[in-house]
Order: sequence, then structure tokens, then C-alpha cells
Amino acid sequence: MGMTMTQKILADHAGKELVTAGELVEANLDLVLGNDITTPVAVSVFQKMEATKVFDRKKVVVVHDHFTPNKDIQSAEQCRVSRNFALEQDLEHFYEVGEMGIEHVLLPEKGLVIPGDVVIGADSHTCTYGALGAFSTGVGSTDMAGGMALGKTWFRIPEALKFEVTGKMQEWVSGKDVILYIIGMIGVEGARYKSMEYVGEGIQNLTMDDRFTIANMATEAGAKNGIFPVDERTEAYLKERSNRTYQVYQADEDAEYEKTYQINLSEIPLTVAYPHLPENTRPVKEAKEVKIDQVVIGSCTNGRIDDLRMAAKVLKGKKVAKNLRCIVIPGSQQVHLQAVKEGLVETFIEAGAVFTTATCGPCLGGHTGILGKGERCVSTTNRNFVGRMGHTESEVYLASPAVAAASAVTGKISSPEDMV
Amino acid sequence: MGMTMTQKILADHAGKELVTAGELVEANLDLVLGNDITTPVAVSVFQKMEATKVFDRKKVVVVHDHFTPNKDIQSAEQCRVSRNFALEQDLEHFYEVGEMGIEHVLLPEKGLVIPGDVVIGADSHTCTYGALGAFSTGVGSTDMAGGMALGKTWFRIPEALKFEVTGKMQEWVSGKDVILYIIGMIGVEGARYKSMEYVGEGIQNLTMDDRFTIANMATEAGAKNGIFPVDERTEAYLKERSNRTYQVYQADEDAEYEKTYQINLSEIPLTVAYPHLPENTRPVKEAKEVKIDQVVIGSCTNGRIDDLRMAAKVLKGKKVAKNLRCIVIPGSQQVHLQAVKEGLVETFIEAGAVFTTATCGPCLGGHTGILGKGERCVSTTNRNFVGRMGHTESEVYLASPAVAAASAVTGKISSPEDMV
Repeated sequence: MGMTMTQKILADHAGKELVTAGELVEANLDLVLGNDITTPVAVSVFQKMEATKVFDRKKVVVVHDHFTPNKDIQSAEQCRVSRNFALEQDLEHFYEVGEMGIEHVLLPEKGLVIPGDVVIGADSHTCTYGALGAFSTGVGSTDMAGGMALGKTWFRIPEALKFEVTGKMQEWVSGKDVILYIIGMIGVEGARYKSMEYVGEGIQNLTMDDRFTIANMATEAGAKNGIFPVDERTEAYLKERSNRTYQVYQADEDAEYEKTYQINLSEIPLTVAYPHLPENTRPVKEAKEVKIDQVVIGSCTNGRIDDLRMAAKVLKGKKVAKNLRCIVIPGSQQVHLQAVKEGLVETFIEAGAVFTTATCGPCLGGHTGILGKGERCVSTTNRNFVGRMGHTESEVYLASPAVAAASAVTGKISSPEDMV
Repeated sequence: MGMTMTQKILADHAGKELVTAGELVEANLDLVLGNDITTPVAVSVFQKMEATKVFDRKKVVVVHDHFTPNKDIQSAEQCRVSRNFALEQDLEHFYEVGEMGIEHVLLPEKGLVIPGDVVIGADSHTCTYGALGAFSTGVGSTDMAGGMALGKTWFRIPEALKFEVTGKMQEWVSGKDVILYIIGMIGVEGARYKSMEYVGEGIQNLTMDDRFTIANMATEAGAKNGIFPVDERTEAYLKERSNRTYQVYQADEDAEYEKTYQINLSEIPLTVAYPHLPENTRPVKEAKEVKIDQVVIGSCTNGRIDDLRMAAKVLKGKKVAKNLRCIVIPGSQQVHLQAVKEGLVETFIEAGAVFTTATCGPCLGGHTGILGKGERCVSTTNRNFVGRMGHTESEVYLASPAVAAASAVTGKISSPEDMV
């Protein structure tokens, strides 16, 4: 019996020839990540473990992105704990205000993840790095603490789902529509603890930013991880960012998958997920007239430069609807700078949107765009649970940057095609 | 006995030939302003008054700037109250996310205040518009409610202090240094309930942005208002923004002033106000080595384009000190756009500062840069009271954009001249 891509990576990191689904292994870690919410908790556990030094100061990454720039005194204090730890441990990769980004935008950008890596992060969207052919997954702060101290952790080898990707997306359709479509199809528990393995010639038609978005939301299908093979686009992406050598893993021919899905990109419509689950999807053109109060474009799901380009393309020369708040948030300082250089920020401001600094902000109901009672938001973020972005009686509709931008113009859920 | 500039404006708006200091008058209002904190309270009072319509839908201005983009559910709810009122009353000037700015940057920019106006605002820095030769002052939410309903309110005619301005500022010195210098000289109660009247040939050497900053902080000296005569610079500023005709008021030759101060601009040094009062000033060059954690450049005091230009000039090609958070906040969408177009945002990001959307944010301890225990901030804002920007054990040092930027580079209170 052969192994999937995920299984091969984990086997290698556990020093085993072969692993099988369901087996528990202890694997070496290439990277351990925490943010300003989870690191302080992990630090406390780390101290209780009587650990003194992290296993490798180059392999523990701390990013302050959730409640920063400091939302309030409590978040300032959380950051102090986390910062003091990062400085004491002399971490090579500690990022906060100024050299900052949303963690899952930042790490790939900085070349900190390469194919074949095993990465854990105390943040559920750590699965994003599967776009680079790495195994990466979210853990709790306790596991983060153990990982920081020991450089290894245990995993249950996941079963796998195979997604055979063919075709090419239609205009305006993006990675966000692909993953929403998949979650709509398999449900929010459809991949519970499994790996979502993408294969097929259609992948070449997905930009790296599309892949990051698709891998990012694996957790919304309940998956342990989502993973893409390494191709020329991956190599080109890495070439500019990392000089570490990497091993490319490929699934065995006879690897076992619980189920195989055919994904023809050309058939995927612009898709929106209605409240209050990411699986409540429907094509944008079947969206009923839903009047919205706010649009958020950004997050670890859709805060990359391709995302902002797409949104700006829609908003160029247009105006945000009266009394609608449109908030655009770059995923990192680098994305911010690029957006300025390309004139995207001018487009957003001229359209009547605001452009902020990089932060997770509103996605998790943190700050910078919280919803009041009865308010509705079309958002490019990843979760639309009850109260996710604010009041328990508010509503979040998940969509791509293009759909979000079009909706900002019309004031209701819309396709860019509706605007001509 | 003649009248001061302030007294003449108030006399005219009260329908009187002559007023004298200490007299109570009822004056007509040209503008009534509220923000997202004060408007909801005013709305509640307005309703208790059984008022139904504002006195003039073109003369009541509501700006959401303090806790926006919505910091949390509470601020979202505050904004809902305020927004619903603005929409019900069909206010011509309702500004929130997207067409937003910090109120005291926005109103002059939009041409909503002209010389000779009487303006009240439920925000203490409403005195800013004195830069345009208007009488403007901060009031509480109850007075705002009365003003909205009746279009008039009562004032006690203020005594006056005269500031005779001569000379020209040295390089890097700005309006912020001038007002800090004055407050250092007269103290935070030095102008209690008085009007601070600026006269003299030195005024021509102050840009409009310098004047806005100086008028803005009149309240920090306890003043009722600060006011500048109208000159060619004022006229040029207004020409681009308003087509309302205005009356220019000049103090009578025999106007009475409680005291006259000579301000020679050429003698004013770069100045910093130490915690915890704006009067605790000293020249920057006499600042002891004070290590700082954060720098904030922005606010209604120093968030205008001249301010950002000055900060960018200092930061150009430099790097923000390690582990220092430098947060730059434009005063409005227009300032933001201009800063993008002029390349200032690129300069800030390349230097390792973050650039956010317009908000009052950290100035009042709201959000976007709150200080933790023991942290120190050099800030271009207007108040450095205990706990103003966060933890009660944090410290705020008030300075100009040039000094703040230089301090961001060195990590301690510094002059731009220290950096060569």
C-alpha cells in the first residue's frame, strides 16, 4: 500500500519508511508558529514544562497580527508577554507592527516555509502552507508550547480525500470560489481530520494566491490539512523567497484515498456562503437581494496582492454604495507597499473604501470593522459563524474579492458582471 | 471700550452692537458637530427635549472617527444610533468609513467652516477652526443636543489673551512646537475660559496646517478658543474649498486683553511635553535619554498633509528602531490619498512604519496602538494625561511630527538634527 503526499512527508519526519492512516507518530517539526493571542498561553505552558530554551531559535516564529496595532490594554499586555518571550529567546523571526503581516500571508512571503516542511501553528489557518507542498496544520497553544520546547510533536496520520482538478476558471472566478464550492459540496465536516490532496492538470491554472486561499480554508471543511503538488509556479514563487533546498514529495500511485472528487474549474461559478456556515453556499447569481452594510476585503484567506488587484479591478472608476462601509486590509506590509506602487490604494480610496494596515482585525471580531445588531457584511474572510464579526444578530456572507468589491458598489450581493 | 476678534464674532451672532467679557449671550450657530462618541448621547437628550427636527440639516455635522472602523460591538452600536439619526434627519454632512476623516481635519478640508462662523462641537478640540478666523469651541453632548434643536446656544463672553507673533521658525520647528512652547509658558490653566488671540506679522510665516495645530491645542491651555486673523494664506485655503461668502472680523484697536505675550517664532526650539501634562515641556535637546516603545504620528492635532510630509522627510531612507512600533495615521481620506500620491506612504512602509486609515484611534486610548504597562510613546497627539493612551503606568511624550519621526529612528526622544 502506497502513501499520500501528506503521509510521505509525515513518515519522513517521523523517521519511518511507511505510515498508515490512523497510526500515531512523533514527527520532527520544521517550524512552530504562534500569534499574539496564542503565544502568551503557550509561553505560560512552556514555563510550566520548565523548558528554558526553544528547540531552535530559527524555527519558532511569533507574529503579532490579531489584535494589533494594539486594540486595547489587554491586547497590549498580551503582546508584551509574547514580545518579551521572543526577545528573551532571541527568536530570529519575530514580527510585529512595522515588519508585520497576517501570519499566513507573511510566512510564505518571507520564504519561511518550503515544500516538504512539517509546520504547526497555534492558529487554525496554519493549513495555508499546504499550497507550497508542505504539511501544515493548526494546533492549540499547549501543543505549540510542546513543539517549541521539543521540536517535535505527535500526529495521527490522516486519511485522505483526493481532488482531481481539471479545466480553467472563468473570468472573475478565483481560488475562493473553488474552496467555497468544495466546502458547499462536502460540508464543514466533509474532510474531518483528513487531508485534502489536490492533483491534476487543472492545478497549473491556479495562481499561488489561489492555492493559498484553497489550502487556507481546508480547516473549514474540517480537514487536518490541504496540500498541493509542487510545480513550476511553486518553484518560481520559492526562487524569489528562499534559498533553502527542499524535497518534493509525490503521492504513490497506489496511495489510498477515502474518496475522489472531480473538480472541473471551468464549471465553478462565483460562489457565496450564506450565514452561518461556510457550507451554506450558492452561486452568486442565485443570491437573493441581500442588502449589506459592510464589505471587508482582506485576511489570511484573501489579503494577498492578487486579491487586492481583483478587487481594485472591480472598483476602478466606481463608487462604493451610499452608507456602506468598505474596508480593505492588506495581508502584509509587502502587500501594502505593492498595492501603493500599483495604484491600487488610490483606486480604493477614490472609490470610497478605506485602506488600513495589515491586521486580522474584523475577521475574528477583533477590531477595525465590527458589526452591530442586524448588520450584514460580505467578507473575503473564512468564517461566517454566529457573531464571528460582531453582534450575534449580525450576518457574514463569505465571498471572493471580486464579488465583495462588486457587492460594495451595488450595496447587495453581486457579481462583477452585474455592474457593466 | 473695543472688542476682541472673538467678542466681535459673538456679538454679531447674538445680534448685539457690543459685548463685554463675562456677559452671557445667546448666539446663533453656524455649525453643530458631533462624533460617534458624543452624538448618541446628544441624540438621547434631543429626544428627551421632544425635539423632532434639527434646526438646519446643512448645519449639523456628524463624523464617525473615534472608535471607527468599528472597534467592537459597543462602538458598532454607538455608530448605529448616530447613523440612524443622521439618516432620519437627512443630514447633508454625515461622514463615516469611506468618506471619513478625523472631524477637525475633515471639516476645514470640506470647506464647512469659514471665517466669522460660530461653531460648537461635542469634542474638546473643536477649537481647531480658530485657525480660519472662526469662533469654535468644544461643548458637552447636552449642549450639542440643544444646539441641534435650536440653532443657538448661550456663551459667556470670554476674556482674552493676546499673543503677538513675530519672526520665523527655524528648520524643523512647526506649529506643534509653538503651541507646546506656549502651553509650557502659561500652563494648562493659563488661558482658562479665555480666548487666545494671535496677531502680528509672524503669522504670515505659519502655514495653515501650523495654525490648525496651534488653534487645536488651545483647549490644552484651558482656553475657550484660539483664533487667528484672516490673511492671504487663509483666503487661498478657503478659495479651494468653499464658495460661501464670509465676513472678516478684526479686533478693535482698543480691545481689552488680560495679558499680552510676545512670541518670537525664531526663538522657539523643538519642544517635547513630558508626562503627564502638556505643560511639562522642555526643549528636545534637553530631553534626557528616554527609551521609547512606540511612536504615533497623526490625530486632529498633527494628521494633516504638512505633518506627514515632515515626518516622511525625516524617515526617508531611514529605518525605524528595532522593536519600536511606529504608527502613522492620516487625518482623512484626502490626506491618505495625497500621501499615497506623493510617495509618503512608500517612505513610511519602507522605513518600517505602519500606515493606517484615518481614525482618532490611539490618541484617546481608543484602539490602533494602545500602550501596555510601562510602555512609552512619543506622540504627535494633544494629551499626555495618565493612562491617556492605555495602561495607567504608560507614558506619553507630546511632540511634532519631525521629532516623533526622529525618535522613531533612534528609539529615544530625538531631534531630526541628531540623525545626520
